[in-house]
Amino acid sequence: MLVLERGEEMISTLTDFCTEEGIHNAFFQGIGAVEQVEIGYYDLATRSYVFRQEDAVFEVASLQGNVALVDGAPFVHAHAVLSRTDDSCACIGAHLKQASVAVTLEISLTDLSNSSFERQQDEAVGLKLINL
Amino acid sequence: MLVLERGEEMISTLTDFCTEEGIHNAFFQGIGAVEQVEIGYYDLATRSYVFRQEDAVFEVASLQGNVALVDGAPFVHAHAVLSRTDDSCACIGAHLKQASVAVTLEISLTDLSNSSFERQQDEAVGLKLINL
Amino acid sequence: MLVLERGEEMISTLTDFCTEEGIHNAFFQGIGAVEQVEIGYYDLATRSYVFRQEDAVFEVASLQGNVALVDGAPFVHAHAVLSRTDDSCACIGAHLKQASVAVTLEISLTDLSNSSFERQQDEAVGLKLINL
Repeated sequence: MLVLERGEEMISTLTDFCTEEGIHNAFFQGIGAVEQVEIGYYDLATRSYVFRQEDAVFEVASLQGNVALVDGAPFVHAHAVLSRTDDSCACIGAHLKQASVAVTLEISLTDLSNSSFERQQDEAVGLKLINL
Repeated sequence: MLVLERGEEMISTLTDFCTEEGIHNAFFQGIGAVEQVEIGYYDLATRSYVFRQEDAVFEVASLQGNVALVDGAPFVHAHAVLSRTDDSCACIGAHLKQASVAVTLEISLTDLSNSSFERQQDEAVGLKLINL
Repeated sequence: MLVLERGEEMISTLTDFCTEEGIHNAFFQGIGAVEQVEIGYYDLATRSYVFRQEDAVFEVASLQGNVALVDGAPFVHAHAVLSRTDDSCACIGAHLKQASVAVTLEISLTDLSNSSFERQQDEAVGLKLINL
């Protein structure tokens, strides 16, 4: 269990935690609230990510991700469903590039460091994919 | 693995289960369907939750949460993404205050009772946050 | 950790994996991208699933599910939240009947084969529910 505090950037804080604790393989889930979010999708046609910026506070209705080695260092891959903090409770979701914790972010991380998998460039899709 | 039955209120049933089984720290995920839902978000400006009521049946597209001690008793914190049971499959999401099981609710709970963390009031945000 | 490749049908690939590895009880989560999706909900009134077809590529913003025995063979039950790969990042969610992997699908599966639960027909709701 990890608890991130208001103002912490989620992806970099989680990456730093894994580096410091020697966690190179893991998966995680989490709930909380974030703001100043960069979220987007991978466009297969252009082989590049397309991101949008959202500054408002969103509830983290769902957070899932994993940690794998890239060039020997832990790399965090996270997808989220974020819901608007208004009466609509409407959701956006996708790949989370970065997000600042707005209230709290409670992450349950399962360490898989007895495994050993890393990401390697896949030329067919243009991304670093997990190689088991 | 826990399976809740039609008509059971999710949060109280899960809380009772943890109390009876002596589970004071855990995280969980789940899928199923619910109705008579109270769902909402924490408004940082007013330091209070704002809830909306939904009576219809929703699929539980995602459920994530954790269990931590509050005043010595297990407290369930859950976020969900709910999808409408019509052709739209449209989603709402947020903090789940209560929900009645509509068909079934299949919950996978990981007991962390070898850990020990509780929620304590955080004056900066006005909520009980997990203190590791 | 399982990594499905572009073109693999998710539910059948996961079912085959569990059959080959002798995994009869499990839960899982996952992230990635899919296309050619059949997604829908269970309609209590008609006691049948209603599915819709989506051919476009969606990010898998959330994937959760479990594996239980049905007639002695592993059966995969999965719910997902899928987000459009356009600027809206809008979500649909529900029960996932089938989906073809579009880029990659990274699944973290927790084997519960020291447990033993199966699905049995529940006449009240008209579905095979998990019997613990």
